Amino acid sequence: MKKLEIVYGIHPLIEAIMAKKTIKKLFFQKGLRQGSSAYKKLINLSKKEHISTQTVSKQKFYQLKNKNHQGVFGITYPIETFHIENLLPLFYKKGKNPLLIILDRITDVRNFGSIIRTSACAGVDAIIIPKKYTSMIGSDAIKTSSGALFKIPICQEKNILNTIKFLTNSGLKIVSATEKSNIYWYNIDFSGPTALILGNEEKGISSKYLKISYEKAKIPSIKGISSLNVSVACGVILYEIFRQRKYQSKIHF
Amino acid sequence: MKKLEIVYGIHPLIEAIMAKKTIKKLFFQKGLRQGSSAYKKLINLSKKEHISTQTVSKQKFYQLKNKNHQGVFGITYPIETFHIENLLPLFYKKGKNPLLIILDRITDVRNFGSIIRTSACAGVDAIIIPKKYTSMIGSDAIKTSSGALFKIPICQEKNILNTIKFLTNSGLKIVSATEKSNIYWYNIDFSGPTALILGNEEKGISSKYLKISYEKAKIPSIKGISSLNVSVACGVILYEIFRQRKYQSKIHF
Repeated sequence: MKKLEIVYGIHPLIEAIMAKKTIKKLFFQKGLRQGSSAYKKLINLSKKEHISTQTVSKQKFYQLKNKNHQGVFGITYPIETFHIENLLPLFYKKGKNPLLIILDRITDVRNFGSIIRTSACAGVDAIIIPKKYTSMIGSDAIKTSSGALFKIPICQEKNILNTIKFLTNSGLKIVSATEKSNIYWYNIDFSGPTALILGNEEKGISSKYLKISYEKAKIPSIKGISSLNVSVACGVILYEIFRQRKYQSKIHF
Repeated sequence: MKKLEIVYGIHPLIEAIMAKKTIKKLFFQKGLRQGSSAYKKLINLSKKEHISTQTVSKQKFYQLKNKNHQGVFGITYPIETFHIENLLPLFYKKGKNPLLIILDRITDVRNFGSIIRTSACAGVDAIIIPKKYTSMIGSDAIKTSSGALFKIPICQEKNILNTIKFLTNSGLKIVSATEKSNIYWYNIDFSGPTALILGNEEKGISSKYLKISYEKAKIPSIKGISSLNVSVACGVILYEIFRQRKYQSKIHF
């Protein structure tokens, strides 16, 4: 039997229900203020989807005591993951111009969650992570992503180097976000299918991935601060891609 | 006497010393691994600046136990703050094209620190915050900003509405980052002196500030995620400003 997952916080639970995730039960903290519109939306959704609810004492929240749980948690099945080899043909079939993110050794779960949230906002089609990240795909990432983890497919791959080669052979432009470049991010053409690699918070992207990247995108820093936070760098590049594609395709969102 | 401030983590301490902040003493955890180049840099800097150091047991780190202190903390004086009325003439005197950030009711200290880090990277000249934010300008913001809090002047103002009016009268274009707009961020001309307002994580920017803004910049979201995290939105707009100004001025960093 699969291990169950805890989802906490009002927004992540709303997103879970809206993404048709099976919530086995919702637990509300006794004496919780119920005034906010988000809270009411959660109650209405849970009624509509016939999710059973229970009011419990504050002690039941003990294991979430340092988290911003907003007085509610739910129990659900773990996030489903995919393989990019299976998804990519579907993207092309749907007429998409694929935009993928590849994460190399991101270690901070808040950065992971924030990248997922930004990716969902900017229209990324899938996020590719190494097999060993499994422990990260949990309640904290769901919360930091504001529930976006339910909205964007996560692909877990055993060998990222092989995955990059597969993507290159499938016509995607591999772009690394790195300081080790002289090409500013906005000088790169993102009009075609693209996979953006983001690297470790301290060490950046592994040299073996840099070597086989088609482009290296630098976001410069002015005042001698070493570099941008990886989730901010992700936003800067993804929205430059948005800007470029918007100009070219005139799609309206 | 002013309350003393704790600075923890290797990078923030390096930045503090390099910014000529007076560190009264450095405390290292007993048995700390001393291999990293950043650690060695900190040791060398502290010797050069004649900062006294002490090795202490793990227990001395008790109040930092949930923080990523990396086995070192220092004691220093609180961050100095300024008034924008005094700084703006200096910016013009130095030939700068001023770029300011105004924070309206940001409540998460990590967002605050992240905005400061991104602002320092993107060349923001000063950050304006309400008087009541004083509690936020502390060790957690220093750590999240990766020490950038020592590199960028923080202006504390009693009445932000009056400050916005002052900036407008001083020739700055006031731009609010908000969902309540149809103008995409990259369609705004950021070539001249600019003050960017960023608002509360849930409620956005107060309507009284929106009303007197010259432009409202929208960063759209595709998959129905409510909006970007405020520190990511900050990065997206600041680096669009960077892109626009770079094209116009051909300044090389």
